Amino acid sequence: MEGVDYLADERKKAQFDVDAMKIVWAGSRHTFEISDRISKLVASDPAFRKDDRTMLPRKELFKNTLRKATYAWQRIIELRLSEEEASKLRFYVDEPAFTDLHWGMFVPAIKGQGTDEQQQKWLPLAYKMQIIGCYAQTELGHGSNVQGLETTATFDPKTDEFIIHSPTLTSSKWWPGGLGKVSTHGVVYARLITDGKDHGVHGFIVQLRNLEDHTPLPGITLGDIGTKFGNGAYNTMDNGVLRFDNVRIPRDQMLMRVSQVTREGKYKQSNVPRQLVYGTMVYVRQSIVADASCALSRAVCIATRYSAVRRQFGSQNGGPETQVIDYKTQQSRLFPLLASAYAFRFVGEWLNWLYTDVTQRLQANDFSTLPEVHACTAGLKSLTTSVTADGIEECRKLCGGHGYLCSSGLPELFAVYVPACTYEGDNIVLLLQVARFLMKTASQLGAGKQPVGTIAYMGRIEHLMQCRSDVQNAEDWLKPSVVLEVFEARAARMSVACAQNLSKFTNPEEGFAELSADLVEAAVAHCQLIVVSKFIEKLQQDIPGKGVKKQLEVLSGIYYLFIIHKYQGDFIATSCINPKQASLANDQLRALYSQVRPNAIALVDAFNYTDHYLGSILGRYDGNVYPKLYDAAWKDPLNESDIPDGYHEYIRPLLKQQLRAARL
Amino acid sequence: MEGVDYLADERKKAQFDVDAMKIVWAGSRHTFEISDRISKLVASDPAFRKDDRTMLPRKELFKNTLRKATYAWQRIIELRLSEEEASKLRFYVDEPAFTDLHWGMFVPAIKGQGTDEQQQKWLPLAYKMQIIGCYAQTELGHGSNVQGLETTATFDPKTDEFIIHSPTLTSSKWWPGGLGKVSTHGVVYARLITDGKDHGVHGFIVQLRNLEDHTPLPGITLGDIGTKFGNGAYNTMDNGVLRFDNVRIPRDQMLMRVSQVTREGKYKQSNVPRQLVYGTMVYVRQSIVADASCALSRAVCIATRYSAVRRQFGSQNGGPETQVIDYKTQQSRLFPLLASAYAFRFVGEWLNWLYTDVTQRLQANDFSTLPEVHACTAGLKSLTTSVTADGIEECRKLCGGHGYLCSSGLPELFAVYVPACTYEGDNIVLLLQVARFLMKTASQLGAGKQPVGTIAYMGRIEHLMQCRSDVQNAEDWLKPSVVLEVFEARAARMSVACAQNLSKFTNPEEGFAELSADLVEAAVAHCQLIVVSKFIEKLQQDIPGKGVKKQLEVLSGIYYLFIIHKYQGDFIATSCINPKQASLANDQLRALYSQVRPNAIALVDAFNYTDHYLGSILGRYDGNVYPKLYDAAWKDPLNESDIPDGYHEYIRPLLKQQLRAARL
Ligand SMILES: Cc1cc2nc3c(=O)[nH]c(=O)nc-3n(C[C@H](O)[C@H](O)[C@H](O)COP(=O)(O)OP(=O)(O)OC[C@H]3O[C@@H](n4cnc5c(N)ncnc54)[C@H](O)[C@@H]3O)c2cc1C
Ligand SMILES: Cc1cc2nc3c(=O)[nH]c(=O)nc-3n(C[C@H](O)[C@H](O)[C@H](O)COP(=O)(O)OP(=O)(O)OC[C@H]3O[C@@H](n4cnc5c(N)ncnc54)[C@H](O)[C@@H]3O)c2cc1C
Ligand SMILES: [Ca+2]
Repeated sequence: MEGVDYLADERKKAQFDVDAMKIVWAGSRHTFEISDRISKLVASDPAFRKDDRTMLPRKELFKNTLRKATYAWQRIIELRLSEEEASKLRFYVDEPAFTDLHWGMFVPAIKGQGTDEQQQKWLPLAYKMQIIGCYAQTELGHGSNVQGLETTATFDPKTDEFIIHSPTLTSSKWWPGGLGKVSTHGVVYARLITDGKDHGVHGFIVQLRNLEDHTPLPGITLGDIGTKFGNGAYNTMDNGVLRFDNVRIPRDQMLMRVSQVTREGKYKQSNVPRQLVYGTMVYVRQSIVADASCALSRAVCIATRYSAVRRQFGSQNGGPETQVIDYKTQQSRLFPLLASAYAFRFVGEWLNWLYTDVTQRLQANDFSTLPEVHACTAGLKSLTTSVTADGIEECRKLCGGHGYLCSSGLPELFAVYVPACTYEGDNIVLLLQVARFLMKTASQLGAGKQPVGTIAYMGRIEHLMQCRSDVQNAEDWLKPSVVLEVFEARAARMSVACAQNLSKFTNPEEGFAELSADLVEAAVAHCQLIVVSKFIEKLQQDIPGKGVKKQLEVLSGIYYLFIIHKYQGDFIATSCINPKQASLANDQLRALYSQVRPNAIALVDAFNYTDHYLGSILGRYDGNVYPKLYDAAWKDPLNESDIPDGYHEYIRPLLKQQLRAARL
Repeated sequence: MEGVDYLADERKKAQFDVDAMKIVWAGSRHTFEISDRISKLVASDPAFRKDDRTMLPRKELFKNTLRKATYAWQRIIELRLSEEEASKLRFYVDEPAFTDLHWGMFVPAIKGQGTDEQQQKWLPLAYKMQIIGCYAQTELGHGSNVQGLETTATFDPKTDEFIIHSPTLTSSKWWPGGLGKVSTHGVVYARLITDGKDHGVHGFIVQLRNLEDHTPLPGITLGDIGTKFGNGAYNTMDNGVLRFDNVRIPRDQMLMRVSQVTREGKYKQSNVPRQLVYGTMVYVRQSIVADASCALSRAVCIATRYSAVRRQFGSQNGGPETQVIDYKTQQSRLFPLLASAYAFRFVGEWLNWLYTDVTQRLQANDFSTLPEVHACTAGLKSLTTSVTADGIEECRKLCGGHGYLCSSGLPELFAVYVPACTYEGDNIVLLLQVARFLMKTASQLGAGKQPVGTIAYMGRIEHLMQCRSDVQNAEDWLKPSVVLEVFEARAARMSVACAQNLSKFTNPEEGFAELSADLVEAAVAHCQLIVVSKFIEKLQQDIPGKGVKKQLEVLSGIYYLFIIHKYQGDFIATSCINPKQASLANDQLRALYSQVRPNAIALVDAFNYTDHYLGSILGRYDGNVYPKLYDAAWKDPLNESDIPDGYHEYIRPLLKQQLRAARL
């Protein structure tokens, strides 16, 4: 059976150069080559197998993750991988582990918030993993509202120490990944108190476990917070609980880059501007958007391949039945997600550029773009993670019953992905921040302040408030300028409508609270505009490869026309388009589905995912679904014996009507 | 801590009689009393504990389910429970088990499709559980397309037997619940072949396992199909795989109520009309809609209570922070789901009546309402299960980070619920059936055929095509007649638009395929109208209890206004309402959120769910969330030791830089 390719015919239909598209997807030839090499390295190493992950009980699962994570580290050292390669390797190992938080949060927190001295002391230890760190911010009682954290760090001038303490049950640290069982250290956020005065939340490096025997240090209670959503999934991570009973740490373990406590216990700001911390935030959110495109493309790849393999109904004269990918309902659910995966990829690429831009500006003490950057990254994080979470589940449903099996890979992908909607800012809380920015921008328009960057369109408010789309036939919807104008007009008008309604309230905060659901809708419209405009900008670049640009044009069309169709209420109610134009958009959308259909398999091949990374029998590259599904079933622990455990105690007495006698 | 009620203040705010609402929710005082008594019986019996369910490895989980299911049966016998009580008991045990399929599918299949003789032979065995049965229809290759099943049942006139055979890999039975490890018998669907002629798919009673030692009978391969979505969840069920290698069964095990094979191998129809089988279908779908209201109300109960307990931001002068239920964004996500739970409850109640009505008509050989009943039950199954699946996940997100813990109950509820969107008819396939019915109705309008039942409104098509809503202020949206008219007009216009577009195709089947995504939208509009109209009908009844009717009016308003807002594109594009009216609907919706707010906790209390049934720390009746979350964490297997398994092999060598030496 090896060597078959049930999707070969599908691959032949492609009207573009898949290899060229792979480079576009990866972002550059360099990134493509690294991804390709490292993903194959991981896929071919049996130590990284993950096909039993959803069957392992928690303790075995967790131990296995410890094995993989340390083995990955060993390989990174042995193969002398670059930082970029190392991070790709962790990515393709595809198993949440303490190393994610160590590299992704602990190290950046020290880099961003530590003084040069502190960095010199702690970073080498962290880089060599002689200590393992986590990021301990959230508590049982406070997540979104970081300023409400209750853990205290009280300076004791007598001993030159901070006393870290958990004064209430709700102040228990709760959720930090890697904290429960592995981390030796944490960046712990606590209210700084000097001389009885509360200076708000600051970060502290706190040792949690004895480096010799791993026992929690005196005064410290540590544990795992329990099982989370899904089989395998995020249960490979020891999200932890942590309590302090008056634990003392030296003064120099407060992260003092921005504010400091002197030997005498005086609290002061350093001359480093606070705004510098935003660099890290942009970086983290940019990587979340990139991850969204990965997770969504992975689900789409599985559902697309399986939709080409799966046949149901419509056999004529005993011939084969219809591939379900040929049903327009299937296409109307699947192809917008395929298009979204590409859209998120490109907006993520752009965010990467934005990060560089912001970093340079910060270094030059230019903070002018920060509010716009903050709003845009918050909004894109929210939009892309929400669409991705829903999209994965839609892909699972697109696979019918078989999508419900763990061997489809989709249940685990969903379960491991969904917290992205909650961590690094709850998606609704983030959209409210975007809305605040929009309202501020709107209110300053009269004052002659010219909005820049992603909000620049608001500078053309007069035009946008009165323009009408002149679309007259379906093809008109393929013109980027037409599309940008309606997206801009819709976003602008929704913002202005909110601003006008807000102005009717005497207390603006009350108004904001009362209208917050509408404000969130305006924020979404703004964010969708950003994604659409970055997709269109991408297409204005030179894109090599036969037919590649054409495919991307089709995908961008599907992306924006799907939004116009789904949100037609916004567009029509604000008179940006009329019902006839909405209907033409829908006609054009349907036409684009037909255009993308022959290219669908090649478009998901372009993600260049190994079968190992996909982790899905339904999504196998070769389409050899049924025999492999059948074989996989027998590996379930329940199939270890024909007669199940419990037969003699429960089933037999039931059948034999001896229930009353049986011990239950 | 026992005896606290952190939600007491919330309960005091209620403006209606909760006990009276409990009766309304239950449907009758009789049903309330049974539910109340049985749910408490289950909750107080430690044998039914389920708080460790999400932590058990598959084999232990499954064995534990066998224990509970047989113990439940024993209690049913000991307590001499009525059929109604027994089914409530299984419901409140809240753990998918082989008994669900035995009682829910195997027994009804024999009742519906077996001759009197067959019923006399098999039903007593099944009623006493001397045999355990499953419903074996779906195969690896065919689910939705039942007519495409490949298993064969070839009549052998020499021996008067059928030979049941699995000719291909894809013909393996795949998915039937209870099949893998427990069932002794199955109703197996196979292509009937007599004398070389294929008569299509028929049902057969087939013994699968030896009743003495439970081994599979000769020629039969049986197993579990593997782990499914989520922890605990549906993994308590042994969805199975089954292959036949020329297995012989006596001729009288074909279910012969409707069609028969004679001793000579002649195939003939009996004089029992085929349509009789629709009775069972209506029954099953009605119960799925009722289940949707249960699952959704359960998730809503958890999210509502937790939203009142959870406080985040907005503390003024050191006072308590804002309960997150007071944020309008939270309300705009939560309250429509609360309203939907009630809406689905009442439409389920009405379906129950419809089932009785259909049964009576079938007995009187009146098949006239069947097409309408079929479309309406298919559509309501699809609509309610889709909204419920999404709604459960939304409730999980509404609980922030803590919703991601299994101890919140929501991950498991989601995972166990979602297949309802797929089984008993994939939701999209069902909506396409509804759409066919709508198109047929539309095409016959000219011919003077008067549509009846839920499609009767199409009889007023001329009015509906040209009416305009006369809503002028927000309160106008509270008038049922106004609302019904816009829902009817929208549904009618969407159907008519589809019909007009269809008529442009020379081949109607091609047109239907091409426009199927739009047809699905028209079907959804029709189904939403049904739910809205049944909610409004309910309110025309006399509903006793202080303030109860008023609350239901508010909920019905939220239900339909939320739809008008979310689907405003449909309503505006079809000119049923104008943008100004849409905006008034949104204003009124916001006003209703404020009205429901003080009653929210009482409205979920009215579901009368025990803490056992809810299975959620976040949803506890007493609101005592934090201490209980904290305590529950320590029960995770990972917390059995401070130092995790794998520390010595993996973490220590890592920290001590001895990785290369370590065995990995
Ligand atoms: C898998 C996972 C991993 C995590 N890893 C870490 C980690 O490593 N380190 C760490 O410190 N933390 C971690 N967290 C915690 C995470 O950062 C928080 O859960 C997140 O910030 C959300 O906060 P919350 O749980 O308090 O939600 P809440 O704020 O309680 O949200 C509950 C509801 O209230 C709403 N809400 C809250 N405030 C407002 C408002 N002002 N206006 C309107 N609505 C509002 C929300 O929209 C939501 O619907 C992790 C969480 C998860 C799930
Ligand atoms: C938990 C669970 C329990 C089950 N229990 C049982 C049981 O006890 N007994 C039993 O016999 N079966 C059982 N099943 C099987 C179940 O009935 C099928 O999975 C269901 O009928 C869906 O069929 P499918 O899997 O073939 O989906 P498919 O038909 O393969 O669906 C795949 C995709 O194709 C689309 N599609 C299919 N046909 C069309 C069309 N004509 N037009 C447009 N789109 C189309 C669907 O919308 C879907 O997106 C169970 C399944 C599950 C998940
Ligand atoms: Ca114009």
